Amino acid sequence: MSTAIVDVITEYYRIPLPELMGDAKHGIHTHFELPVVKIILENGCEGVGYTYTGGVGGRAVCNMIEHDLKPFLIGKDASRVEHLWEEMNWKIHYVGRGGIASFAISAIDIALWDLRAKKAGEPLWKLLGGANSSTKAYAGAIDLNFPMEKLLTNIKGYIENGFSAVKIKLGQERLEEDIERVAAVRELIGPDVVFMVDANMKWSIETAVKAAKQLRQFDILWLEEPTIPEDYHGYSRISKEGGLAIAAGENLHTIYEFQNMISRGNIDFPQPDASNIGGITGWLKVAQLAYAHNLPVCTHGMQELHVSLMSAMPHASYLEVHSFPIDRYTARPLVIENGRAVAPDEPGSGVQFRWDLLASFKASF
Amino acid sequence: MSTAIVDVITEYYRIPLPELMGDAKHGIHTHFELPVVKIILENGCEGVGYTYTGGVGGRAVCNMIEHDLKPFLIGKDASRVEHLWEEMNWKIHYVGRGGIASFAISAIDIALWDLRAKKAGEPLWKLLGGANSSTKAYAGAIDLNFPMEKLLTNIKGYIENGFSAVKIKLGQERLEEDIERVAAVRELIGPDVVFMVDANMKWSIETAVKAAKQLRQFDILWLEEPTIPEDYHGYSRISKEGGLAIAAGENLHTIYEFQNMISRGNIDFPQPDASNIGGITGWLKVAQLAYAHNLPVCTHGMQELHVSLMSAMPHASYLEVHSFPIDRYTARPLVIENGRAVAPDEPGSGVQFRWDLLASFKASF
Ligand SMILES: [Mg+2]
Ligand SMILES: [Mg+2]
Repeated sequence: MSTAIVDVITEYYRIPLPELMGDAKHGIHTHFELPVVKIILENGCEGVGYTYTGGVGGRAVCNMIEHDLKPFLIGKDASRVEHLWEEMNWKIHYVGRGGIASFAISAIDIALWDLRAKKAGEPLWKLLGGANSSTKAYAGAIDLNFPMEKLLTNIKGYIENGFSAVKIKLGQERLEEDIERVAAVRELIGPDVVFMVDANMKWSIETAVKAAKQLRQFDILWLEEPTIPEDYHGYSRISKEGGLAIAAGENLHTIYEFQNMISRGNIDFPQPDASNIGGITGWLKVAQLAYAHNLPVCTHGMQELHVSLMSAMPHASYLEVHSFPIDRYTARPLVIENGRAVAPDEPGSGVQFRWDLLASFKASF
Repeated sequence: MSTAIVDVITEYYRIPLPELMGDAKHGIHTHFELPVVKIILENGCEGVGYTYTGGVGGRAVCNMIEHDLKPFLIGKDASRVEHLWEEMNWKIHYVGRGGIASFAISAIDIALWDLRAKKAGEPLWKLLGGANSSTKAYAGAIDLNFPMEKLLTNIKGYIENGFSAVKIKLGQERLEEDIERVAAVRELIGPDVVFMVDANMKWSIETAVKAAKQLRQFDILWLEEPTIPEDYHGYSRISKEGGLAIAAGENLHTIYEFQNMISRGNIDFPQPDASNIGGITGWLKVAQLAYAHNLPVCTHGMQELHVSLMSAMPHASYLEVHSFPIDRYTARPLVIENGRAVAPDEPGSGVQFRWDLLASFKASF
């Protein structure tokens, strides 16, 4: 029996968040969306992939998989993963190049890697290189809307749960308020906990440079997404004039955008997200691009999968432990030991959904 | 009665092409897709907008309009067109920035401009500036798969129909064959007809430079899309080393991509397409970017609408008359007089669909 694809099943889940979460440019989040793809082979094997969104676009992702990519995939050999990635990108190129297309291809590609790893009988962290079986990790909420007291309680919770690195959102109406929140968090966590901040594209270059200069005194590892992701020249200015290391990537959906952001934007911490950069195949291309530029690789979101990718890499920086709780709907919620996230050891992607927990959130698309 | 939006109706049409058409990277086209949006105001006015694709992704476009953008638009004031454009871009930003999102926003934006022009009682060519009531135009087919005889017959037809500028596709397996076809067409049309060529992203930089050098002897106005649209540095090399003027734009779906392609890629003929650059609002932003860079503006596809935009511009170059026959399904198929395309004079977008002709192609999405 062959590895030919005989069916592609697309499912859409819309899951309420445990509390309202806000960032500087995407506003208040109430749900996350979870488009899921199940790829069935002639030999009976099933691979599962998925992507996620902050509440919009998930149905369009499912629609593209169902109407544009599924007809292309049926009958293809699932073991030619990178070839299918290339072909899918060209199949939807005219309406693609980032955006919804990257999310759709990501979900499919992750399912193909799940199949490849199951066939190999290896966990992803080994199959992708095996540098480590765990990775450094930090915790952060979408906490721009949290009052100061709640912000500090939340950060305290992370430390109590074993994290030794934390991130908060910036982008309040007044920069002074951001600085007050950063000062309070640094005071709470002491000098030894690693601390990052994230402005979610809120600022102009001028404001970002001003903010970076004021933030330096608090020993910040990186300033994330100070401005819109298209402004490579602006990123370069913020990096040089602000004097802080810069991170970005969650809103870069093609490897070419990363190429420009790294070579022209001079960022220090590229953060590809396998759910929107074209799956594991896309993520690895960015990881290798970072390696060739003498940079570490980071992640955004989807920690239950990224833990395996980051563990595999020799140049991994910090895994983001995001506050969309996708892993609560899996058989193995993220494991943290000694401040590090531990990669699952079973063959496959390591992400097995608990369909019983997801069932009530399934919706049409 | 106000200009508040009370309904947004999305329709999907899938229309067979009169013949099979091929280009270098998208393969053979059998259909085009026509997602249509009707925006209904409280005062009873209706605006119609649309986008199109080469056969994939149209349903995802409709899905995003229906599920993500319609809920945002209901109750908004339709007269704040540019504000709604900005807000829509941020609404779907996390899954957007080009791709499907740009097509979806384009369809809505065109409907909003239809309403604005109807309210003003002006045709678009006047409302957008009024430089002219007609514009230079060229004809071209997706003719890479046409045998030589059919290619020449087709070009002869364009000349007989009044065109004084034509374009053919390049990207055959052997560059020699491309050059033979260009030589034959130039011989057919004589020295006075303007002649462009289009490689649809097929080539490496090395091949593109070699091709440009060989093409120069045939008095080619522009070489279109010699390589992938993300490679700004490559475009700059082709332009400088090849010695031909370069055109691109149909695969640039954000104004930032145009900004990079113009300032770094050194293209001479930017070709925004209102159906995929964010509608008329997006097209005008690129047109002004071109103006500020001392460049003309061109178009891709959708001639029944672009004729009005190009006529309005002081810096218009050539309107593409594309071989997807959208205008056959409108009340006013494109009018060519003395080699120029004439803008419609009625208030509104000037594109009134013949729903009777479209009805049989309507499908679910
Ligand atoms: Mg972030
Ligand atoms: Mg073209």
